[in-house]
Amino acid sequence: MSVMVRENEAKTKEKWVYSFGGGVADGNASMRNLLGGKGANLAEMAKLGLPVPPGFTLSTQVCNAYYELGEAYPEALKEDVSDALRQLEKTAGKRFGVPDNPLLVSVRSGARASMPGMMDTVLNLGLNSETVIGLAEKAGERFAYDSYRRFIQMYSNVVLNMPHDTFEYILDDYKEIHDYSLDTEMMAEDWQEIITQYKKAIKDVLGKPFPEAPEEQLWGAIGAVFGSWMNDRAILYRKLNDIPEKWGTAVTVQSMVFGNLSENSATGVVFTRDPSTGAKSFYGEYLINAQGEDVVAGIRTPAPISRYRADELGSSDAPLEEAMPSVYGELVTLAEKLEAHYRDMQDLEFTIEDGQLYMLQTRNGKRTAAAALKIAIDMAREGVITPNEAILRLEPSQLDQLLHPAIAPDAVRDVIVRGLPASPGAAVGKVVFDSEEATKRVDAGESVILVRVETSPEDIQGMHAASAIVTARGGMTSHAAVVARGMGRPCVCGAGGLVIDIEAGEFRFGGRTIKAGETITVDGAAGEVLQGAVKMTKPNLSGDFRELMGWVDKVRHLKVRTNADTPGDVEIARNFGAEGIGLCRTEHMFFDPARITQVRAMILAKDEMGRRSALGELLPMQRSDFIDIFKIMEDLPCTIRLLDPPLHEFLPHTEEDLMAVAASTGVDILSLKRRMQDLSESNPMLGHRGCRLGITYPEIYEMQTRAIFEAAIEVVRETGIIPHPEIMIPLVATHKELVILKKLVDQTAEHVLEDAGIVLDYKVGTMIELPRAALRAGDIAKSAEFFSFGTNDLTQTALGISRDDAGRFLKVYEEKGIYEKDPFVTIDREGVGELVRMATLRGRQTRPDIKLGICGEHGGDPASVMFCHEIGLDYVSCSPYRVPIARLAAAHAALLSAKA
Amino acid sequence: MSVMVRENEAKTKEKWVYSFGGGVADGNASMRNLLGGKGANLAEMAKLGLPVPPGFTLSTQVCNAYYELGEAYPEALKEDVSDALRQLEKTAGKRFGVPDNPLLVSVRSGARASMPGMMDTVLNLGLNSETVIGLAEKAGERFAYDSYRRFIQMYSNVVLNMPHDTFEYILDDYKEIHDYSLDTEMMAEDWQEIITQYKKAIKDVLGKPFPEAPEEQLWGAIGAVFGSWMNDRAILYRKLNDIPEKWGTAVTVQSMVFGNLSENSATGVVFTRDPSTGAKSFYGEYLINAQGEDVVAGIRTPAPISRYRADELGSSDAPLEEAMPSVYGELVTLAEKLEAHYRDMQDLEFTIEDGQLYMLQTRNGKRTAAAALKIAIDMAREGVITPNEAILRLEPSQLDQLLHPAIAPDAVRDVIVRGLPASPGAAVGKVVFDSEEATKRVDAGESVILVRVETSPEDIQGMHAASAIVTARGGMTSHAAVVARGMGRPCVCGAGGLVIDIEAGEFRFGGRTIKAGETITVDGAAGEVLQGAVKMTKPNLSGDFRELMGWVDKVRHLKVRTNADTPGDVEIARNFGAEGIGLCRTEHMFFDPARITQVRAMILAKDEMGRRSALGELLPMQRSDFIDIFKIMEDLPCTIRLLDPPLHEFLPHTEEDLMAVAASTGVDILSLKRRMQDLSESNPMLGHRGCRLGITYPEIYEMQTRAIFEAAIEVVRETGIIPHPEIMIPLVATHKELVILKKLVDQTAEHVLEDAGIVLDYKVGTMIELPRAALRAGDIAKSAEFFSFGTNDLTQTALGISRDDAGRFLKVYEEKGIYEKDPFVTIDREGVGELVRMATLRGRQTRPDIKLGICGEHGGDPASVMFCHEIGLDYVSCSPYRVPIARLAAAHAALLSAKA
Repeated sequence: MSVMVRENEAKTKEKWVYSFGGGVADGNASMRNLLGGKGANLAEMAKLGLPVPPGFTLSTQVCNAYYELGEAYPEALKEDVSDALRQLEKTAGKRFGVPDNPLLVSVRSGARASMPGMMDTVLNLGLNSETVIGLAEKAGERFAYDSYRRFIQMYSNVVLNMPHDTFEYILDDYKEIHDYSLDTEMMAEDWQEIITQYKKAIKDVLGKPFPEAPEEQLWGAIGAVFGSWMNDRAILYRKLNDIPEKWGTAVTVQSMVFGNLSENSATGVVFTRDPSTGAKSFYGEYLINAQGEDVVAGIRTPAPISRYRADELGSSDAPLEEAMPSVYGELVTLAEKLEAHYRDMQDLEFTIEDGQLYMLQTRNGKRTAAAALKIAIDMAREGVITPNEAILRLEPSQLDQLLHPAIAPDAVRDVIVRGLPASPGAAVGKVVFDSEEATKRVDAGESVILVRVETSPEDIQGMHAASAIVTARGGMTSHAAVVARGMGRPCVCGAGGLVIDIEAGEFRFGGRTIKAGETITVDGAAGEVLQGAVKMTKPNLSGDFRELMGWVDKVRHLKVRTNADTPGDVEIARNFGAEGIGLCRTEHMFFDPARITQVRAMILAKDEMGRRSALGELLPMQRSDFIDIFKIMEDLPCTIRLLDPPLHEFLPHTEEDLMAVAASTGVDILSLKRRMQDLSESNPMLGHRGCRLGITYPEIYEMQTRAIFEAAIEVVRETGIIPHPEIMIPLVATHKELVILKKLVDQTAEHVLEDAGIVLDYKVGTMIELPRAALRAGDIAKSAEFFSFGTNDLTQTALGISRDDAGRFLKVYEEKGIYEKDPFVTIDREGVGELVRMATLRGRQTRPDIKLGICGEHGGDPASVMFCHEIGLDYVSCSPYRVPIARLAAAHAALLSAKA
Repeated sequence: MSVMVRENEAKTKEKWVYSFGGGVADGNASMRNLLGGKGANLAEMAKLGLPVPPGFTLSTQVCNAYYELGEAYPEALKEDVSDALRQLEKTAGKRFGVPDNPLLVSVRSGARASMPGMMDTVLNLGLNSETVIGLAEKAGERFAYDSYRRFIQMYSNVVLNMPHDTFEYILDDYKEIHDYSLDTEMMAEDWQEIITQYKKAIKDVLGKPFPEAPEEQLWGAIGAVFGSWMNDRAILYRKLNDIPEKWGTAVTVQSMVFGNLSENSATGVVFTRDPSTGAKSFYGEYLINAQGEDVVAGIRTPAPISRYRADELGSSDAPLEEAMPSVYGELVTLAEKLEAHYRDMQDLEFTIEDGQLYMLQTRNGKRTAAAALKIAIDMAREGVITPNEAILRLEPSQLDQLLHPAIAPDAVRDVIVRGLPASPGAAVGKVVFDSEEATKRVDAGESVILVRVETSPEDIQGMHAASAIVTARGGMTSHAAVVARGMGRPCVCGAGGLVIDIEAGEFRFGGRTIKAGETITVDGAAGEVLQGAVKMTKPNLSGDFRELMGWVDKVRHLKVRTNADTPGDVEIARNFGAEGIGLCRTEHMFFDPARITQVRAMILAKDEMGRRSALGELLPMQRSDFIDIFKIMEDLPCTIRLLDPPLHEFLPHTEEDLMAVAASTGVDILSLKRRMQDLSESNPMLGHRGCRLGITYPEIYEMQTRAIFEAAIEVVRETGIIPHPEIMIPLVATHKELVILKKLVDQTAEHVLEDAGIVLDYKVGTMIELPRAALRAGDIAKSAEFFSFGTNDLTQTALGISRDDAGRFLKVYEEKGIYEKDPFVTIDREGVGELVRMATLRGRQTRPDIKLGICGEHGGDPASVMFCHEIGLDYVSCSPYRVPIARLAAAHAALLSAKA
């Protein structure tokens, strides 16, 4: 209790509000958790003496308090805000709610992690029927009334929950009556009339007038921004990006500057390096006479920032470099200062009000994996950061982008339309026009390309589901572009001239028509949309990649192996740096169409003799696979799992297949059906599989062991390579199972090796994939020379969830926060993790040098790799394309745990 | 290492051989583990001065050493046996291998636990072509040569592995040539000729002569008896009776006495009380001029021991009481002495050689459950044993017999044939003539009656499978009778005149023919075989039963609840002493044919509204069940589990059912099929079931909660009884699931109770049936007021074995000793047990007063009840008929753990 009291005391002394501006600030960049990214960096910029419009930030703790108090504010807040507002008035030299040179403010969200467009914003706040007159005096009547009606519109939507349509109808009607077609035809008087109509509509719908008092406006906006932390989009975005709810958002109230005040005004976004490629070139775009939202929303397509970019894009628009050369020069200087200060590539928002440059935001810029890689390596080479920092600059999960296919250089490219190369990579899929449809089809197993006029936060789920995104409008920093890069989806933006006809279910460009459902290819790197499924190539991993991975390999403690069953996969994995095979599933060889008949003959045999005869024919086939694999892996360890799945998986499922099997095995259909009936199981996952097959049909494991050792002998003889096979017994629950099967393996191996007169080191071990095995690991380690944690099955059994059936409820489970992450993707630390930890301890107690690894899907998941590092496993094993990710994740784990 | 050496030293000083006879003995009754039951009791009887033929026993440690040394003897053994043999010669006044008054011996097995007929025996050992002459001088030529050929036959079978047929052919041929039909027609010369032919055949088949040297014979027999410890029958018997292999058998070498020497000789078996009923009456049977084997083998039907028994059985044979009154008197005195000495009912074997009584064995007699109960209660009343000892005299598993049905008094009895009432109880089943067939049909789900001429140890498995056994031959102590009583199977023995015609697949009696597969009823208590399925009654539990259970209830710590879903079952369980409901499966109510339509309508509903409407109709039905159950259970706690199984279990499986559902729900067949497809799962055991239904369809749990509380309110109002519902949430894996569903239950309960203005104590808790739940028990206990261990599912998930599919391999697993016992019958202490123990500790740490129980099938298994007692659970819950078993097992657990 005493601790509680002290906490409460601390809270009463809490600083809720942090001011910035005029070369000073209460906060700084390190206070990101408290002030959000935006607030912290505005404070930092203010401190650095950069031209930042002054303001103040309500901390994320206000957000948490707000929700803890049932959407109410802590008592002291009112006064704190009031104080901060007075200080802001002083710094800005303007007064809030006073007609003479009135202070107008923006109210924006700012979370610890960037959540672009997910939460609400209010601009031009402080305008009312009196202050609008003051603004008119300063900026002209038309601008002032246009700003006021914009404010009413925005505030009404965001704060008052007025339907958007109402205002649109009023404006459309007005324009029709007056025969206007563009907003630019609207004069000050027109906007005044519109404002009157808006206010009337608000009173009609809500039963109370639009608030005149600026303070009331301010508190309304603050509440709305805090409220938007819990809107559906924000919740979904947090889920997709692993952002905890308890982080909360800050709210920043900042003096308005106007990029839309005149033709000498502008607004833009700049990256200090190219966020697509990482090239050290000033990158960005801007709009003359516009507000920042216009750039981000993608409604107007902005112009390039520099001559270099303009040439690169073939743009005929004047770059800022030429339109406003001196402001451009100032911007470049500030940008370089900020990058050097933050020691990372910056994403800046700026506004030019009548020739005066203001910095509105700086943050570490989002980037593609390729850019992240190049920037990290370049900065390390520049001496700005250390190699270890460079390693931490590349998110393991991001690496995926680098490892995925691109369009083959020699591919025939039938270009339908060109746009901006907004996010690199390439993908093939069927055209869909609707996010919901995209999600549905992907759930049904299809690959889709989402084609939209522009995207909005409502599209997040569909974008996530899609293999690539194409938009008709919007620039390189539009919603679609930013989100697609973050997700690693190829994206082509602003494909001007593209007509999307939802009604007809097609899109058209230059006389060509593509129907929904047709297959197209997106080349995000080239910014091209291609007809049909175009040939792809494997990713070409650059020298930068190899250099970084070299650093990575020096840092990590965990070895990385691969789960690969075919020589092809093994080759890829080796090229990606796999240090052995962690899981070779021998049954995948059984599914080969050339062999399935013999496999079926084996399964359908009536007795051991029949099985042995069929196995005899499978032996040379299995042997030849192992020969190839051993040759590729050379002296690296190869963990080979003996047959695991229930036998009925190999049986035919259709009547035609059945007939074929009957014909080729000489077994009549009736017997076949009876045998299939015999083999069918209620819960095959918990059935006659794994080592249970080895116990009941020892001849199968005997054949497999023989094939492994005969292959090893042949490789020794042919190449001099000494393979290191590790025979893995699956689904062990008891020590006795392993004792029986280890004896079978040892006897068979001894027999084969003796006949050949060859001595070969090998290991026998087991999967730990049942809770009982984890509990009995102390016993099992008496016979097991290694454990490989099969966390897929361990998750299924520990949680009692069949992966195949989990779809029915796992989504609801994630929504309700029962499992924070899909436990089949990221290891459930509390449950499955405890079993793994327990087995690790118990296994090592019995056999201190026991080799411990993981071979479930979790082996390629960065968060799970962190776990494996923490509990001190020897290696992780994952699919070939995940090997570099696991290597990087292992290095992150080593660096982060050393830090902690 | 030093410990090992000391052990070895101890072994070199080991005493391997224990002599007895002549009023002294090296051993005594307490040395049963070392000398086996037979050896220990022979030593004890010798010490008591009883007329025991002298001999010596090779201890069970010799057996273990024999197998440890690879079927060879410890070095010191030869000399020890030689010494013991010399002492035996002295005591017996005869010499081994010396023609003049030769010492003949029997060589018999004797394990710690009785294993009747499972291991080998050799009689008349020491006979050869010289000693047979000495025997002839003493006992007559015919007897001597008959004994010699019997010895050759027995020894050749048991020790030399000669085929049995060879000797039968020789004898049959000889008899045919000489036109003899009976053995009694064979004279001394005939047996001499037979012996010559036997010896020749042995030389021909084995390539070496039959051993003449008695010492060689002796070592051969000893090796054979030790060897028989590992024969298939013995292994199977041990498995069925939980006898560990490492116990080993002792071998007793004993001076022969001959019950077949003359008409003044006899052999018999006596129980000091009636092993069927427990009545305090001298019970047994004997054969004049016979060897002990003849009684046990059931080849001749023996005469009753006493006039009382003769009258009881309506036998016309002269009882021993009348045939040899003075020996009978001596026998009664000895028997009373032995029962008093051992403080338990004795099963004695005796032989009378020319009027001289010898005791060959005494042991605690096997008995029916009814007899065990009566004897225990009687002896406690007599003051011979304490009530606690009486409790331990009744095996919990035996109790089953007392609780099962008997033929209804008013049933129409169409008697096919009468025999001996060998084992009480009654059963209905289909006639089978073959043990293998019996096992197969029972595996297929049928109930069978095994009908045999006589049974042999090979029939054990079939007898175990059968619901009852009928034999044409053999007495009350025949193999069939002893084994059936041990197994609790009703048995009718010696149904004289019954003709079993295997070829025709039928049995006949008095002109009636019963075909294989026809249904008959066996009344083991009356010794009658009845036509068809006869009406049964519930067991009538006597005052003795109630008295014992009274003692039991005072002793035990564990409470016993029941798993019952219907008012009928709840009533039975309450009568059997259930102290609450541990598991009421609400889904069983859903399967009621009157409700299934509404259930299906609920499942097939397209949305929540549809489900709610169907649930609304189910509500009053569920409520009425609960009303009945609460009324029966009164103020005892009732744990009610909310819906658990996957919904598709409720859907129709046949086309006809489907049509019916379509008709009654108004849903078309196609939608129905689609919905069924949607609901089908790969692994339903790990699928959308348990609390996952509650999370995804809260309205179902809401309805069930409402039904429970509305029922409770009605019971309070109607009867004044205050029910104690305990709402149980199934298949919880995470604390959050319970948090969400407990809130739903609490809110619903509060609502219903508030409306009624009634305050009611209830609990909300959870099943612990997933490994993750056991691991997270500390968390879960924050919300759970009780845990009920669902050890069925916990076994399935911890071991990764689906109970439905385990049949395919679990048998092989048991054979290979991977699981000593079926883990679904007796809890797997090492795996599942650790999870239960862990959850118990963690749960109590969070909530010290948490109520802990078990509701898996293990709750009625005595070995598992012991475990539950050890880890300190509050209660076990089991099916109604198992309640008394669990009560007794709980008392045993308390008494045995207090002892230990």
